Amino acid sequence: MSAAQPRLPLGFRAAGVTAGLKASGRPDVALVVNDGPDHAAAAVFTTNRVEAAPVTWSRQVVADGRVDAVVLNSGGANACTGPQGFADTHHTAEHVAGVLGISPGDVVVCSTGLIGELLPMDRLLSGVDVAAGELSPDGLEAAAVAIMTTDTVHKVATHLGDGWSVTGIAKGAGMLAPALATMLVVLTTDAVVSQPDLDGALRAATALSFDRIDSDACMSTNDTVVVLASGASGVRVDRGPLTDALTQVCASLARQLIADAEGAAHDIAIEVRGAASVEDALEVGRAVARNNLFKCAIFGNDPNWGRVLAAVGTTGATFDPMRLDVAMNGVQVCRAGGVGEDRSLVDLAPREVHVLVDLHAGAESATIWTNDLTHDYVHENSAYST
Amino acid sequence: MSAAQPRLPLGFRAAGVTAGLKASGRPDVALVVNDGPDHAAAAVFTTNRVEAAPVTWSRQVVADGRVDAVVLNSGGANACTGPQGFADTHHTAEHVAGVLGISPGDVVVCSTGLIGELLPMDRLLSGVDVAAGELSPDGLEAAAVAIMTTDTVHKVATHLGDGWSVTGIAKGAGMLAPALATMLVVLTTDAVVSQPDLDGALRAATALSFDRIDSDACMSTNDTVVVLASGASGVRVDRGPLTDALTQVCASLARQLIADAEGAAHDIAIEVRGAASVEDALEVGRAVARNNLFKCAIFGNDPNWGRVLAAVGTTGATFDPMRLDVAMNGVQVCRAGGVGEDRSLVDLAPREVHVLVDLHAGAESATIWTNDLTHDYVHENSAYST
Repeated sequence: MSAAQPRLPLGFRAAGVTAGLKASGRPDVALVVNDGPDHAAAAVFTTNRVEAAPVTWSRQVVADGRVDAVVLNSGGANACTGPQGFADTHHTAEHVAGVLGISPGDVVVCSTGLIGELLPMDRLLSGVDVAAGELSPDGLEAAAVAIMTTDTVHKVATHLGDGWSVTGIAKGAGMLAPALATMLVVLTTDAVVSQPDLDGALRAATALSFDRIDSDACMSTNDTVVVLASGASGVRVDRGPLTDALTQVCASLARQLIADAEGAAHDIAIEVRGAASVEDALEVGRAVARNNLFKCAIFGNDPNWGRVLAAVGTTGATFDPMRLDVAMNGVQVCRAGGVGEDRSLVDLAPREVHVLVDLHAGAESATIWTNDLTHDYVHENSAYST
Repeated sequence: MSAAQPRLPLGFRAAGVTAGLKASGRPDVALVVNDGPDHAAAAVFTTNRVEAAPVTWSRQVVADGRVDAVVLNSGGANACTGPQGFADTHHTAEHVAGVLGISPGDVVVCSTGLIGELLPMDRLLSGVDVAAGELSPDGLEAAAVAIMTTDTVHKVATHLGDGWSVTGIAKGAGMLAPALATMLVVLTTDAVVSQPDLDGALRAATALSFDRIDSDACMSTNDTVVVLASGASGVRVDRGPLTDALTQVCASLARQLIADAEGAAHDIAIEVRGAASVEDALEVGRAVARNNLFKCAIFGNDPNWGRVLAAVGTTGATFDPMRLDVAMNGVQVCRAGGVGEDRSLVDLAPREVHVLVDLHAGAESATIWTNDLTHDYVHENSAYST
């Protein structure tokens, strides 16, 4: 990951504006446009069967591997809005296409916010007009800001290759993965790549990043991760280095999402070692990451390793309960399924928490990132409709 | 359910005493003894693969269908305590057997409290001696009180048959089902029943009661539901009426557990109708019951039905997203997958909340009981090791 100030790769323009969708008056409409010469694209979406209208629309748009623009709004998810909601998404894409002189079938639409309310279309379309007028190669940060919901900071990550780059923006907060998170991500690259390579690289990258974070086990209706390739650098990049670059950018964005998850006071890495398979390691990691009692204990700086074992015990992974080891921030609190070092030795004051579970059942491993369950999480998700 | 003051059926004595296992000085050791003439018994246990030593022991005790006594302690779960933990459970059973003049192999042991710490055996065994001296046909309430952990009230339920009865005590609080809850339950009946009937009736009763509550999706290491039949009434009861009676008592105890779940401010019934199968209805009900965002919304009196649909969408149940209906406390907030009546019409001020999800995919139904996710839940489970 480069320390350089992130900016859009060659061939892209972006903008973010305030259209009045949010009561707060904060920016809420973004555009990302690929000026080419290439227009390769790929995307992954939520696996939630109750998917928002923009997800249904965008799946079709991406199916032919070409995307010219992405329009995103915060301030409303346009989910569970029936035929009118879909018509609104369609209308938004047509409006963007008209303004930019492109085809509606090449416009991905992303929405995020409260489920079950129709979007104020007049404001949204006016916002699109304003955003189109402000499109700029320097518009990355403005677009990243305009897609925030309960995020406290905007999220950007970049990877500089040799004459090419990948840059991504993301919003997250509650419900965090294409499998599992309220998450919109737009990735851009100026590399010259084939569409199949782009698709394969995106799936590999998200499997190792967004699919391995889990803030609250809640799966959104709107998750979208889309990647656009302009080819404007003129540098041809093979699938291997492209996958590496996308994985780095996605991993950075994923960690930023967890670090800014609603109400989180600790970022927790659950590393599972000694698994018979990667699938086992992931199942165990997820079970711990989703255990509310464990998450509350971490919030209280309580190294309650019994709750880790209780979570591991709910899985179908291969292990012998009498051989399980658990370390928390380097202290081996559980050894061979029983009491290990004194739990009072564990320091949970730092924000970063590392839980290591050794199943002693094989050579595979995986890490799931999550956060603790806090008063602020309850407050944010009870006091406001989001 | 009878309104009569619950008491033990004929043939049973119980006691509850303070042995000093709890820092609070509250009662923490209970005995329930079956004086016969019959000693039929059955039990169900946690399905957690990381099971506490007393669960491992008690599975063996119940295997032959005979139990003479149950010893229970709060103040320590004796889970994840290795070979020493199992030796302690074995020693406890032998001690109870010696005091009562019965066989250790007929003594069920139940423990509840913090995972990962050895029990103070001297105090526990002294407590058993005191409890044995206090055994009484009137000891039901004392036993129910002595098994409480973070419970705020003790739980008792009874069913009066024609010349026979069933009475049960329970403790719960966090992690709530034999599949799913920090739960110890002792059921007693003076009916004359065959052991196979008792076993079948218990499994049917728990499937419809404890298996349908889910306070926080966390599965305990210690859950035990044991039923003892003394035959002291001399009344022979068939499996049908026995199942009905056990189901009534278990359903009452299950509701009491949910009503007293850690930090709960609302009791929530999630009724799923129109399912293609009972399994589908249960899967959908559980998915909603485990959705933290939904549970936070209910805490905040926010009828955020979008979070219900987002949870339904994560299941594999048969349904068409465009036909889903959701009502909250009688208001049809979602109709055909989209916006229904105004959400502001929903009154979530009462403690009892009813969420009705109609899948429009069949004729089956099921209800899952849960509660909301509150500041007090986070507080109780972060501030204290339990």
